[in-house]
Amino acid sequence: MPAARTRRRTCATASPSRQNRSVTDNGRLERLAELAITVGANVQPGQVVSLSCEPGKEPIVRALAAAAYQHGAKFVDVSYFDLHVKRARIQYAAEEDLEFTPPWIAERLLHLSEMRAARVATSGPVAPGLLSDLDPRRVGRDPLPFVPEAIQVVNERTTNWTIVPFPSPPWAALVYPGVAPDEALERLWRDVEHVCRLDEDDPLEQWRMRADALDAAAARMTDAHFDSLRFEGPGTDLTVGLLPTSRWIGARMDTVDGISHVANIPTEEVFTAPDPERVDGFVRATKPLVTGGNVVRGLSVRFEGGRAVEITAEEGGEVLAALTERDDGAKRLGELALVDREGRIGPLDRVFYDTLLDENAASHVALGAAYEVCVGDADKGRINTSAIHIDFMIGGNDVSVTGRQADGTEVPVLRDGRWQL
Amino acid sequence: MPAARTRRRTCATASPSRQNRSVTDNGRLERLAELAITVGANVQPGQVVSLSCEPGKEPIVRALAAAAYQHGAKFVDVSYFDLHVKRARIQYAAEEDLEFTPPWIAERLLHLSEMRAARVATSGPVAPGLLSDLDPRRVGRDPLPFVPEAIQVVNERTTNWTIVPFPSPPWAALVYPGVAPDEALERLWRDVEHVCRLDEDDPLEQWRMRADALDAAAARMTDAHFDSLRFEGPGTDLTVGLLPTSRWIGARMDTVDGISHVANIPTEEVFTAPDPERVDGFVRATKPLVTGGNVVRGLSVRFEGGRAVEITAEEGGEVLAALTERDDGAKRLGELALVDREGRIGPLDRVFYDTLLDENAASHVALGAAYEVCVGDADKGRINTSAIHIDFMIGGNDVSVTGRQADGTEVPVLRDGRWQL
Repeated sequence: MPAARTRRRTCATASPSRQNRSVTDNGRLERLAELAITVGANVQPGQVVSLSCEPGKEPIVRALAAAAYQHGAKFVDVSYFDLHVKRARIQYAAEEDLEFTPPWIAERLLHLSEMRAARVATSGPVAPGLLSDLDPRRVGRDPLPFVPEAIQVVNERTTNWTIVPFPSPPWAALVYPGVAPDEALERLWRDVEHVCRLDEDDPLEQWRMRADALDAAAARMTDAHFDSLRFEGPGTDLTVGLLPTSRWIGARMDTVDGISHVANIPTEEVFTAPDPERVDGFVRATKPLVTGGNVVRGLSVRFEGGRAVEITAEEGGEVLAALTERDDGAKRLGELALVDREGRIGPLDRVFYDTLLDENAASHVALGAAYEVCVGDADKGRINTSAIHIDFMIGGNDVSVTGRQADGTEVPVLRDGRWQL
Repeated sequence: MPAARTRRRTCATASPSRQNRSVTDNGRLERLAELAITVGANVQPGQVVSLSCEPGKEPIVRALAAAAYQHGAKFVDVSYFDLHVKRARIQYAAEEDLEFTPPWIAERLLHLSEMRAARVATSGPVAPGLLSDLDPRRVGRDPLPFVPEAIQVVNERTTNWTIVPFPSPPWAALVYPGVAPDEALERLWRDVEHVCRLDEDDPLEQWRMRADALDAAAARMTDAHFDSLRFEGPGTDLTVGLLPTSRWIGARMDTVDGISHVANIPTEEVFTAPDPERVDGFVRATKPLVTGGNVVRGLSVRFEGGRAVEITAEEGGEVLAALTERDDGAKRLGELALVDREGRIGPLDRVFYDTLLDENAASHVALGAAYEVCVGDADKGRINTSAIHIDFMIGGNDVSVTGRQADGTEVPVLRDGRWQL
């Protein structure tokens, strides 16, 4: 975990919106923002800082902006994406216009890369189910707010970035249905503070220790040089091939300029890029996933030769199926991640309907683009490329993970959520 | 007034936020949005549409987006600017970084220009006084959200654009202090509907008639070929020189592609670009002005040889003074506008703390950049240029306006708010 290398100024004085004032008057927002700006993005004096969010996340955005400026940011630029406007697009826009993306979205990202900016994204649904009554084929044609350059900039390692969850009333209502709004929001705040280790006396030291453990597990996985991993559990028997230079990443990433950052707050995973040509078998998602305002439940996917050849779901599967029509790589895997039971999210045994939290509760894979940082130069041309990147959870304590080396040796990796190597 | 040349689809189904649901359930938002998209910007099928707003204006933005897509927009892009984030910048950013503007703000505008996009801005303060306790010199150094390219794009006449007011609770509290929030919001909505002529059976026909009258007044002013105008009233004796080719613009503007649009909803003014070298005398503002969250009251300005040599105010004058340090043109006039008493805003005799409404209640001038459309080619090099454009109100029924022709003939222009020519 990077030490906070930045100068400290006086305490933040952000203005939480009225809706959250009752549960955030005690400095919660400021502590969450401080964690994201220091441990997460590790904002350096003089950096431009990009924040991205949806309307409804103003309280955390304003606290993040204040914290970033207090740590010496040159400029803070906020990018908003309103799912209600996306809804109007999908309702009314002409069929041929649904895939249009204005050039300035990518250009802003490329400027941020050139500038060596810091980037903070905010997680947590603010409008769950908003698109669920629309034609899923039309929903699937509109990839925004995602643009392929988001993956490119991550691969260039030019920006120190993180994602941090923000507990909003709509999200609390989704996680705690039937609970009074104030109580639901309070419970979600406590969950987020727990999984972000903000309920500890010294969250920074807690993150240093957990990041050390994850980085060590990643190093052991890389050193084991597995040729493939096999996932076995209820509804799942999936073998995922690895590339010769697949390397596993823990909590910390470094930019090309040597700025160490923790890309997810919280993070509990170690991950790599698989061989997009060698994925076979079937897998049943162990958690719902939320993509662009749409909830996919009861997802099952069958792979042959690396391709997802069958995608079914009890609910919302059509949107995912449509997204995987986007390009050749959208049906292949770009990420493989392992999550042990030592993390703080899994033991809560709660569905958060938010990939940042849910993916860190369970081992997972992602359809679509891979991160170049996960392989050596020799395999950079072999990892998957796509305009999409959609994580879904396939692990759990009842899903075993076994590594197979090139000589056929099988090595237990995870049993009952515990590391075996 | 342009006929609505666009295809009509089914009625809008925007989702007003909970805060405004009570006063907007009856379709108010949708009617205001429809007026802005048709009479105002005159959005054409296939156009990209830019919307700009602050957080807190989501209800009108979502209604505008739905209306734009229903009228055939190819894509709607929303640009948000959060004054709370600006506040954090002014509180904490290093002195030398306060004038920094990231390149993507201007680049997006230039793309919109190249694309021949439509643009809709939303007016009405959402955070009045938010910057009033900060160092006015630092506030004045940060021009955002204004960028000089905004003037350039207007001058290029490549985009059909409008500005429309949105009644929000904070604005209602400012206009109606001491009134219960729901009642204040209801009154402000009624004001806005009245001045936007939405309380008429056929608002489009009403706008056609008023625009005809304004365009006729503008034509008479242009034909009079005045060398200067003199404003006389309480605290005011100001002479503003005109350029040989100064032309007066009424309600309607045309893009280079011939799309007619009404740039302000509501509009009651006829305006031109003055001679930036020939402004002399003193003027007392007849209304407060709100600039970047800061309210300036009791403003007086003395001009010599075109330059504002003395700027004083009872409140907030330091911010305006600092903004006029921005560049050479920031102390000179770029706009001169006349407003008669036939409009709907003046008779309300109310201060709205919003330039869009207040400037249309009274004759006004603007410090800073001029619009090229106001002069012939021969004088395009003589109009004022600046990175700022700040309107302030100098007219009223007790301020007379007299034209002086090159031969010394004096002609009454406005007396008691009535046209004399």
